[in-house]
Amino acid sequence: MHELKIFTDTPENILDSTMRASKGAFQIYKNTSPSIRKKLMYTIAEELQAKQSLLIEIAHAESHLPIDRLKQEINRTCIQLQQYADATEEGAWMQATIDNLPDPQPNLRKCLMPVGPVVVFGSSNFPFAYSTAGGDTASALAAGCSVVIKAHPAHPNTSTLVWECIVAALEKNHLPREIVQHIYGASHEVGKYLVMHENTAAIGFTGSFTGGTQLHQWAQQRPKPIPVFAEMGSVNPIILSELSLQRHANEIAEKIAQSLTLHAGQYCTNPGLLLAVESPSLGVWKERFIQAVRLTPTQKMLHRGIWDRYQTLVEERLNHPSVQTLLFSEDRVDEFAYPVLAEIHAKDFLNNSWLGEEVFGPFQMLILAKDIEELIEVYRALPGQLTTTCWIEQDEHNKFQPIFDLAILKAGRLIWRGVPTGVSVTTAMHHGGPFPVTIDGRFSSVGQDAIQRFARPVSFQNWPDQLLPEPLQAENPWKICRRVNGKWN
Amino acid sequence: MHELKIFTDTPENILDSTMRASKGAFQIYKNTSPSIRKKLMYTIAEELQAKQSLLIEIAHAESHLPIDRLKQEINRTCIQLQQYADATEEGAWMQATIDNLPDPQPNLRKCLMPVGPVVVFGSSNFPFAYSTAGGDTASALAAGCSVVIKAHPAHPNTSTLVWECIVAALEKNHLPREIVQHIYGASHEVGKYLVMHENTAAIGFTGSFTGGTQLHQWAQQRPKPIPVFAEMGSVNPIILSELSLQRHANEIAEKIAQSLTLHAGQYCTNPGLLLAVESPSLGVWKERFIQAVRLTPTQKMLHRGIWDRYQTLVEERLNHPSVQTLLFSEDRVDEFAYPVLAEIHAKDFLNNSWLGEEVFGPFQMLILAKDIEELIEVYRALPGQLTTTCWIEQDEHNKFQPIFDLAILKAGRLIWRGVPTGVSVTTAMHHGGPFPVTIDGRFSSVGQDAIQRFARPVSFQNWPDQLLPEPLQAENPWKICRRVNGKWN
Repeated sequence: MHELKIFTDTPENILDSTMRASKGAFQIYKNTSPSIRKKLMYTIAEELQAKQSLLIEIAHAESHLPIDRLKQEINRTCIQLQQYADATEEGAWMQATIDNLPDPQPNLRKCLMPVGPVVVFGSSNFPFAYSTAGGDTASALAAGCSVVIKAHPAHPNTSTLVWECIVAALEKNHLPREIVQHIYGASHEVGKYLVMHENTAAIGFTGSFTGGTQLHQWAQQRPKPIPVFAEMGSVNPIILSELSLQRHANEIAEKIAQSLTLHAGQYCTNPGLLLAVESPSLGVWKERFIQAVRLTPTQKMLHRGIWDRYQTLVEERLNHPSVQTLLFSEDRVDEFAYPVLAEIHAKDFLNNSWLGEEVFGPFQMLILAKDIEELIEVYRALPGQLTTTCWIEQDEHNKFQPIFDLAILKAGRLIWRGVPTGVSVTTAMHHGGPFPVTIDGRFSSVGQDAIQRFARPVSFQNWPDQLLPEPLQAENPWKICRRVNGKWN
Repeated sequence: MHELKIFTDTPENILDSTMRASKGAFQIYKNTSPSIRKKLMYTIAEELQAKQSLLIEIAHAESHLPIDRLKQEINRTCIQLQQYADATEEGAWMQATIDNLPDPQPNLRKCLMPVGPVVVFGSSNFPFAYSTAGGDTASALAAGCSVVIKAHPAHPNTSTLVWECIVAALEKNHLPREIVQHIYGASHEVGKYLVMHENTAAIGFTGSFTGGTQLHQWAQQRPKPIPVFAEMGSVNPIILSELSLQRHANEIAEKIAQSLTLHAGQYCTNPGLLLAVESPSLGVWKERFIQAVRLTPTQKMLHRGIWDRYQTLVEERLNHPSVQTLLFSEDRVDEFAYPVLAEIHAKDFLNNSWLGEEVFGPFQMLILAKDIEELIEVYRALPGQLTTTCWIEQDEHNKFQPIFDLAILKAGRLIWRGVPTGVSVTTAMHHGGPFPVTIDGRFSSVGQDAIQRFARPVSFQNWPDQLLPEPLQAENPWKICRRVNGKWN
């Protein structure tokens, strides 16, 4: 068994020298070709795969996530690195745009350029895919940015080992190891210092609403504000029509039960809210659903803090006079997740909007509307969401059109007869939604377009060809996909 | 002569009903096809052209801008409307993305969707191109958003007449007139009310740093913050190499003199700062330049407030003990612009960074560096800029490489041997730079990509084809340019 070390917060003088070194490394790394970036990112994936057993062992000890899930997550992390590396080579993300205008108009060329050192705050619930070598780091490296990672305090040993894989990859590719640096910090002070440091150009964060909005507030207080890409919480409402409940009772019950309880419900896409019109079919389905949830496996939560908070928030909700408990087991094991189901009438929910806030873990509230108008009213009252799922039959879609219209303004992803968990890493994915689920819902933290978060457009007017960045040079030396006179090729 | 009316601030109850009506109109307008939007925008251009003489007469009376300039500006405004209309029909801006993934992965499709009612604050210095039917309105209409325009208090009659052209175009196209509404407000209260209104989804603004940052601050205080696209001020540094001054003395003197004084220097791209290393060639060139500036025509400034402020800021600078006056005429006509040239040594400039702030009008400061290292140090110390211009010879570019590297991080547009004024309306234009010149330098307020400011990506997972937005439907009914499996077609 690998010994777990305890790490203390990195002191301020080291944070400062880290950010200085990061800026120095950025000056070199930003000029690397996509093929060099690609090779680096593929090598990181190879290093992670080579160290897989040890990584899983340590991550399991630190996060309590099951072995098979961690194995899948390392795999996903490697695929992300490879996909974003491929995207940087293909180059469409740079949006290289060339307009050949008639005289006397100037020659104008524009593309995205990397912004500078990116600080990544690792998440607690994805020790690999959204931590040290996760989506934010992959995006920043693909964009041409240097990275400083703050290890999540719940899994610093995992983070350190992943970072060592990155360093090995940098060395194998003869690149300065300051391109990716690693620091520790359990205190707010470390986070604040990193956000406020003049060399920090952007922040990637996955975590709580409190954490994300705090980082954003600091970032706005800087003499020169910087973007904070914070992916926070969501209750991911699921709309259930009576007809769907009649036609697919088992399928819906099974799928939502699994989605709700998967890995102790510790996902930002966890379905925390069901919306349905009261009906006899709903009553029948509910019993089936409670049974399905009761049969799901449980596991230890990520850390005691999360378990404690889960207990507090669940208790607060179940103690509310308008909330009815549907499932709550008194028989509990310390730090282990236990699914909780509750229900409330729409009118009571509308008077207590805080009940629409996220409970991180396998907690779900069913909102009972008296008719479709009330259901729409509840959905309208919800804040921004990562996702909205509809279990609706195609032959009744007219009735639900107001929900679809609202969902396009309220959510980042609309799901038809599925579950919100399971986020495909692909170009057409949008993982991010209107505030308060993300600080800036115009950007995605999953999928190749996530690279664009760490770049900014710059135009070049009559600039000499040999002084242009490669993506804009006449001969297109990087052979990237470009938009010339308005057409992509 | 058309009589100029005086307008009072729109009262709060009307502002509220305006924003409610705008949300209602958005529900209809967002579903219009690109061909309807295009026809509307082309009709607005026709209406403006039909009313051209009256528009120019009124705008000249309100803004004092010369007739020929106003004629060009109406022309530009019409071209903008047409170009953005063409772009919305071509549809690449929607970034419609379709990934056909192998089973068991879901079918994912993503595109930009309009955000909702956009509030446009007209500018003072572009009564047509960045006001009522200007770039922000054209962007919002192309994106599918309804618009509420606050007339700039310096030209409310021009704004009203332009708005009447828009209403005529809406009526000719049988569209609700609430799609574009018009209000008046000289007070902060009106601006704040519009920013804070729950129906407002985004802000377009062109004006001062104080105004733009105030709107942004309010927008951040909302329960749900909204984006503010504020295009503020810039000093647009020009770097002059000794070799360039030797080889192209006349050309540089003429071009910069014209750019500085064009229409009383009332442009955000006005070149307010020159940077050069002291040399005998610079001394010779300076005399020639002062002569060229002295010979430029003058005109009345936009309004007395701008003239008063110009006088105050010029006086503050010329009274500074480290600043030498190069050109300042005591012979002045009330409200007429007068060019002012000053110089300062780099070390004194570095100790007084406020001297790098914008003076709106034909004021320019020459910064004398003792060597190239000091010139680089001054450039490094400057805040974000809309543009940076280099008069450098290609055979000496190595010496200036640090300037190029810094400029890519500091400016939105880099110009080779030209002047910053004259902003081409084209896809490859980027008009926007790092804070403090814009709130969000990742977006451009000029060129077809400006449309993207008023839209947000939404993903659809396994969504039935007939319920998808048209840009994502299998048959591509709008025949727009889309990205399928990572390739644009």
